Amino acid sequence: MAEPIEFYFDFSSPYGYLAAQRIDEIGARHGRDVAWKPFLLGATFKETGLKPLVEIPLKGDYAKHDLQRSARLLGVPIREPKHFPFMSVAASRAVYWLMDRDASLAKRLAKRLYDTAFGEGRDISSAEAVIAVAEEIGIDREQLGAALQNPAVKERLRAEVEAGKAKGVFGSPYIIVDGEAFWGSDRLDQVDRWLETGGW
Amino acid sequence: MAEPIEFYFDFSSPYGYLAAQRIDEIGARHGRDVAWKPFLLGATFKETGLKPLVEIPLKGDYAKHDLQRSARLLGVPIREPKHFPFMSVAASRAVYWLMDRDASLAKRLAKRLYDTAFGEGRDISSAEAVIAVAEEIGIDREQLGAALQNPAVKERLRAEVEAGKAKGVFGSPYIIVDGEAFWGSDRLDQVDRWLETGGW
Repeated sequence: MAEPIEFYFDFSSPYGYLAAQRIDEIGARHGRDVAWKPFLLGATFKETGLKPLVEIPLKGDYAKHDLQRSARLLGVPIREPKHFPFMSVAASRAVYWLMDRDASLAKRLAKRLYDTAFGEGRDISSAEAVIAVAEEIGIDREQLGAALQNPAVKERLRAEVEAGKAKGVFGSPYIIVDGEAFWGSDRLDQVDRWLETGGW
Repeated sequence: MAEPIEFYFDFSSPYGYLAAQRIDEIGARHGRDVAWKPFLLGATFKETGLKPLVEIPLKGDYAKHDLQRSARLLGVPIREPKHFPFMSVAASRAVYWLMDRDASLAKRLAKRLYDTAFGEGRDISSAEAVIAVAEEIGIDREQLGAALQNPAVKERLRAEVEAGKAKGVFGSPYIIVDGEAFWGSDRLDQVDRWLETGGW
């Protein structure tokens, strides 16, 4: 069985949201699982000298327009979350915590969180907001609340972010297929083709 | 007659080189001319706080790999020019100077300069190097040499860069179709579709 496709994304990344609409379908078409890997882009900004896209003059304004246009082309809603860019630590911790218990539900939670933030424009930055979204899909409020304070869960996220950085992740989405890295939602067609052909 | 597609690019931009391989064909498919507009990205770096892609840690290394991979997919050669990133002032002035005399030859020169830099990996940063390339396609050495020193030609480039900045150009390639802006060689499929449908 081939290794899963690694799908690194930051919950605060709108282009990650767009990629999240297609990545599982692309994997399924080639009989490949997709491992969803929440990541904290902020951890790389110091090294790359980059900053959140929307904070860059000219480029940020263009990106807002481009996101709307690209979302329309995909036929998915896109709204700017109430707070943006926002802290994605709680959302990321929740997903990694759940992954060890129920991987399928963890992915469902990740999708639901993304849809809440960028599909509905609601806040998912606080632990309370993340818990509310999780409850909607049947996740226990008390257990998740405790998990978000658990040092082991915090460490799990930190280790995943370090592992991502070691693999070269510097943006969102960042997709690794059999060791080959693709950055950006606009590389999904290349990902699809790479899976089809094994490279070119 | 519809307005030409505006194709802004910096001669020092490898993604501009990739877009240059396809843009005329896309325009022709929709009966549209393409106005090639050399641009100086450096003029926007102060405002955007950005810097040349290859100088950004992690992202720069990724870009080098991505460029090779994307060029292979297009079936075009790509080499890193001898000096890179390089000053594209002389190349840009040459193209604008020629544009007022023979627009078709100016575009041919622009393509030849791009192919020399990124197809063959040769230097095109100096006036001497630009003149040598121009001579290969029959442009008079003396006339071009004088033009590159002509204050009116210098002013022409400066005005074009200012006009581009006023239109929001901050990257390369940057393509404007009927007032709609697209940044990046990975947006060419959207450009194609926009021309086909008039928007979505």
